[in-house]
Amino acid sequence: MNKVEQTLKPHDALARMLGDEMGAVTALIAERMASRHAPRIPEITAHLVDAGGKRIRPLLTLAVARMCGYSGTDHIRLAATVEFIHTATLLHDDVVDESGKRRGRPTANLLWDNKSSILVGDYLFSRAFQLMVEVGSLRILDILANASATIAEGEVLQLTAAQDLSTTEEIYLQIVRGKTAALFSAATEVGGVLAGLGDDAVRALHTYGDALGVSFQIVDDYLDYGGTEALGKNTGDDFRERKLTLPVIKAVARGDAQEREFWARTIGKGDQRDGDLKQAMDLLERHRALSDTRQEALDWAGKAKTALEDLPDHPIRNMLADLADYVVQRIN
Amino acid sequence: MNKVEQTLKPHDALARMLGDEMGAVTALIAERMASRHAPRIPEITAHLVDAGGKRIRPLLTLAVARMCGYSGTDHIRLAATVEFIHTATLLHDDVVDESGKRRGRPTANLLWDNKSSILVGDYLFSRAFQLMVEVGSLRILDILANASATIAEGEVLQLTAAQDLSTTEEIYLQIVRGKTAALFSAATEVGGVLAGLGDDAVRALHTYGDALGVSFQIVDDYLDYGGTEALGKNTGDDFRERKLTLPVIKAVARGDAQEREFWARTIGKGDQRDGDLKQAMDLLERHRALSDTRQEALDWAGKAKTALEDLPDHPIRNMLADLADYVVQRIN
Repeated sequence: MNKVEQTLKPHDALARMLGDEMGAVTALIAERMASRHAPRIPEITAHLVDAGGKRIRPLLTLAVARMCGYSGTDHIRLAATVEFIHTATLLHDDVVDESGKRRGRPTANLLWDNKSSILVGDYLFSRAFQLMVEVGSLRILDILANASATIAEGEVLQLTAAQDLSTTEEIYLQIVRGKTAALFSAATEVGGVLAGLGDDAVRALHTYGDALGVSFQIVDDYLDYGGTEALGKNTGDDFRERKLTLPVIKAVARGDAQEREFWARTIGKGDQRDGDLKQAMDLLERHRALSDTRQEALDWAGKAKTALEDLPDHPIRNMLADLADYVVQRIN
Repeated sequence: MNKVEQTLKPHDALARMLGDEMGAVTALIAERMASRHAPRIPEITAHLVDAGGKRIRPLLTLAVARMCGYSGTDHIRLAATVEFIHTATLLHDDVVDESGKRRGRPTANLLWDNKSSILVGDYLFSRAFQLMVEVGSLRILDILANASATIAEGEVLQLTAAQDLSTTEEIYLQIVRGKTAALFSAATEVGGVLAGLGDDAVRALHTYGDALGVSFQIVDDYLDYGGTEALGKNTGDDFRERKLTLPVIKAVARGDAQEREFWARTIGKGDQRDGDLKQAMDLLERHRALSDTRQEALDWAGKAKTALEDLPDHPIRNMLADLADYVVQRIN
């Protein structure tokens, strides 16, 4: 890590290093979200895209392509592709979750309506599909098709597993892959395929993206119970929304009959009373559910960093390692 | 047309001729809608798929592939692909239209919920995407990506053009392409590409599918005002639902200020009173809006049949011509 980057968060350092290419991605997104006849499409897309977010997925694609010595321009198309897929997912998620806020602004389903969010999401997905076809690599199309299926299956799974106390850690992991890791790993993998890397290196890129994504999501779920308000998360939101996240899954599995009754009432039935959050926190503590969750996040981040060892020695490789560290630093 | 087929509707004759292949498509659909962890997915898909429908899109792909002498098995994959895309669209449409019935059964959004319909629709689309990637033809992927974008853009357009009296026939046509014609033409086109047809013949297949789809939709919109109850359509449903279909677009364009006020009140604002449907029918009659709509449907069917002239002489070609005739026979 050099001096300048030390003062920046790793994704900001990447964004600075890849500034020109990110600019090209932004321009391509603006061009492709246009619709001659249906102005509602660019309106809604711009609402989301302009709100920013860290753009971590397109950054990953650009970073990997650069790290692996790719010299063409198709990584711009693929970076825009993953951002379109991500944006499409957000639009549908906000309808499904009945969310009112996203990236600090009212959601599209609130500003326009659910119908628009559903249909514009479909449109963005089809635009992503067109972009990736333009790149003309069947192997890349295969990676992105499989990622799309994992994302969609994970979303359905999350819906049907919600409030189901028999949800296992295996199912949780599959949901997390759908929510986050599948698109992270596709984003890194396609960058390497584009650069013509061998199978082992491509597998390593997949592992890095997957482990980074899983770690990221576990940290998020940890922070909801273990974080401080300063981080902008309200302790217990997931509890109030009856989400079966990893800490709760662990506590439920380790609890006795009486405790399972508590979880069945509060999460299963949603019958929550004063003091229940405190009681939930005590149970998480008693069963070491939070510290074990924290350890799992660290393990996944470690796995991500280990995968990088098989990849070309390059300043970007160090930045990707920093990114894995940064993700879990939030829980320290 | 031989004796047996004369007694059958053209799509039933096609379905009989291609029975084995349709069986293989049905089996592939069942296989690919499975989900190990999320049983909600096959439940919802089966609810729609088992309800039947004419399966006209996969039939078109199979028919064209056979007509053009294709001897492989990828047409089964592509037929399943177009049916998956179609089913995904139906799931999202029913949420957007707040429909309660589809193919004579309660809709999935009613039996389960909107969330499931949205996410299972996304899942089916991603499964379609995987299937078409397996076929391994970039040209076919390009055709299906473009069709998907046309479908999605048409859907948004339909939403934003709804109740907008300034909607032109050009916009109407684009909506119709999104609703019906884009997937019809992709279904026929990919069959020909698979069989290795030349560019002119592939273009002719596109024209046939497109014109058939447009004609089909115009007939539907005609029947809503011009049909008889015996056909199972209730006269005036579109009027009550304030849909701007071709007959109304024509009547609005040809009406005077007073008539435009009538349309603005009934369709634009949805303020409908006793006698309004009768008044609307009178205006359609006065401006020859229905007879001109009927003529357009006939013209499109004619265009579909003309396109077939450039294609291989084959019994299936005659059945496809019969299908174009059959679509418009409903208005005679």
